[in-house]
Amino acid sequence: MTVEHAAAGPGAGLGPGPAVLAVDVGGTDTKAALIDGGGTVREVLRRPTPRDAARPAERVVDEVVRAAAELRGRHPDVEPEGLGLVVPGIVDDERGVGVRSENLGWRDAPFADLATARLGLPVAVGHDVAAAGWAECRLGAAAGYQDAMVVALGTGISAALVLGGRPYRGGGLAGEIGHARVAEGPGCVCGGRGCLEQVASAAAVARRYGEATGTPVPGAREVLVAAVAGDPTAVAVWDDALDALALGLSHAVALLAPQVIVLGGGLSQAGDALLGPLGARLDALLTYHRRPLLTRALLGEDAGVLGAALLARDLLTRDLSAREPATPTTGVEP
Amino acid sequence: MTVEHAAAGPGAGLGPGPAVLAVDVGGTDTKAALIDGGGTVREVLRRPTPRDAARPAERVVDEVVRAAAELRGRHPDVEPEGLGLVVPGIVDDERGVGVRSENLGWRDAPFADLATARLGLPVAVGHDVAAAGWAECRLGAAAGYQDAMVVALGTGISAALVLGGRPYRGGGLAGEIGHARVAEGPGCVCGGRGCLEQVASAAAVARRYGEATGTPVPGAREVLVAAVAGDPTAVAVWDDALDALALGLSHAVALLAPQVIVLGGGLSQAGDALLGPLGARLDALLTYHRRPLLTRALLGEDAGVLGAALLARDLLTRDLSAREPATPTTGVEP
Repeated sequence: MTVEHAAAGPGAGLGPGPAVLAVDVGGTDTKAALIDGGGTVREVLRRPTPRDAARPAERVVDEVVRAAAELRGRHPDVEPEGLGLVVPGIVDDERGVGVRSENLGWRDAPFADLATARLGLPVAVGHDVAAAGWAECRLGAAAGYQDAMVVALGTGISAALVLGGRPYRGGGLAGEIGHARVAEGPGCVCGGRGCLEQVASAAAVARRYGEATGTPVPGAREVLVAAVAGDPTAVAVWDDALDALALGLSHAVALLAPQVIVLGGGLSQAGDALLGPLGARLDALLTYHRRPLLTRALLGEDAGVLGAALLARDLLTRDLSAREPATPTTGVEP
Repeated sequence: MTVEHAAAGPGAGLGPGPAVLAVDVGGTDTKAALIDGGGTVREVLRRPTPRDAARPAERVVDEVVRAAAELRGRHPDVEPEGLGLVVPGIVDDERGVGVRSENLGWRDAPFADLATARLGLPVAVGHDVAAAGWAECRLGAAAGYQDAMVVALGTGISAALVLGGRPYRGGGLAGEIGHARVAEGPGCVCGGRGCLEQVASAAAVARRYGEATGTPVPGAREVLVAAVAGDPTAVAVWDDALDALALGLSHAVALLAPQVIVLGGGLSQAGDALLGPLGARLDALLTYHRRPLLTRALLGEDAGVLGAALLARDLLTRDLSAREPATPTTGVEP
């Protein structure tokens, strides 16, 4: 067990509300957090995500139950009222089902039902990138904006959308900009070719540099360092990534006119080396369109658990208001 | 004066509600309609849109007032309670302002205030393409879908979006897919190059064929006829348009995962000659993405006035519910 940290910083932004458990199941690690009624993240546990080809979802829920018990045991003064659980892949938020994860192996996994049965708590299930984006929009770099796009530049590339102040999920399939074509090649794991994430993801930058030089590098960071030092191959790979990313984002800007684009994930750690040239390329592609603010994610690696906490609190608050007969809610046509 | 037609067909879909005036100001013609309390479109007047470089917005409102008086004089049994007015260009729906129309020449034109002062009625102002798309989503080809995109393929190319069952406007700047880059050239009036509408709009198809053959043609229809007859230049121009349109739409599908894409505007009259090959190209570009239903607009040239009528009715209904103290509305976090 690794106690990652007792968070104080961004978690403070959650504010007062029901105490909740929040779990972010990642491709590598799973983070589990306990948030108290004041909105303080009391502790975040991080462990390797369990893998079990036969019962992948059940094993994940086992781990959630174990982490919950540990967190509750160590913070007996906090009584969580619900759980927010975010997972990768295709997710049906409404039904609380993990529809599909290529990486972790489940199909139609009823996470909400499984976790509720084990914990006896209401469970909100969401998509990891969407939840992290929602957290950036409520608590982080896009707070206060109505129309925002939070782009995760990691192993893959995907986006979370907040439109008109509400998360937009497109039936769980929105935001897959990593698999829009921006070039003639190369082939992609999805079956397409020229997909954005084959050129511009952190993994692609490292892989393409390694292929071009014959010398594998651990990650995109090394390519950026080489580019800054003037290595022409690194410069070419980095430029290709920036061109592709700008082109992909320009389509999103033309279609949605977001007020802000927040960049997160591994590649965003390049900071101004990413934001500066990417912004210049986007400027060159856009004409009369609304030029979005381009900025880095603020919440860092805890964005996913904070988003999970928001989902749990929203579920509990909605349930409370649904039980309250004195203030009926009326659907208002926008 | 030309009485275009006394509509019966699609207008019947409006159903019972307040009687309203609805005006669609187009680049060429302005249509004004009177809708009664049963939702029947009693009459549609169509006239050339007035142009006045010195006072473009005021002259448009003059024409609205004249058409309103004429419609009310001829249908004295109908007492309209509001006006829906849709205009092209950049529109600020909230403030009822036509921010900019390159074609008709206004800047920051306060249409809602101008029309309310002249007519003494509440006025809802909207964007022509967005309103037509909203009508297709409520009454036409996309009725019943939550996540829809209605693409107008005319002189230009733009899209109206309904996301999560609500129109999405992005501050009046969303949907400008006609100015997203899909090719290396040609130059565009917007200042960009390779914009979708320079390759795939009805106007572009006609222009590019004329340029390639040295023989100007009146419109895209003639190019399609030539392509069907085997003219290789026409085939090439038409194929370029289809390729570009499929690429542009594939980016929108990856980002938004709409359930349905409705094609309207002049080029959509090509029918299956457009839908078939476009659908095949889109299929080839998409992999695991949600494959949207691809279909033609149903409401035809009246979509704009029907959308304007919906805006007026929504405004009146919202005003009514806002005046009703017995049913308070509560914002529910999604």
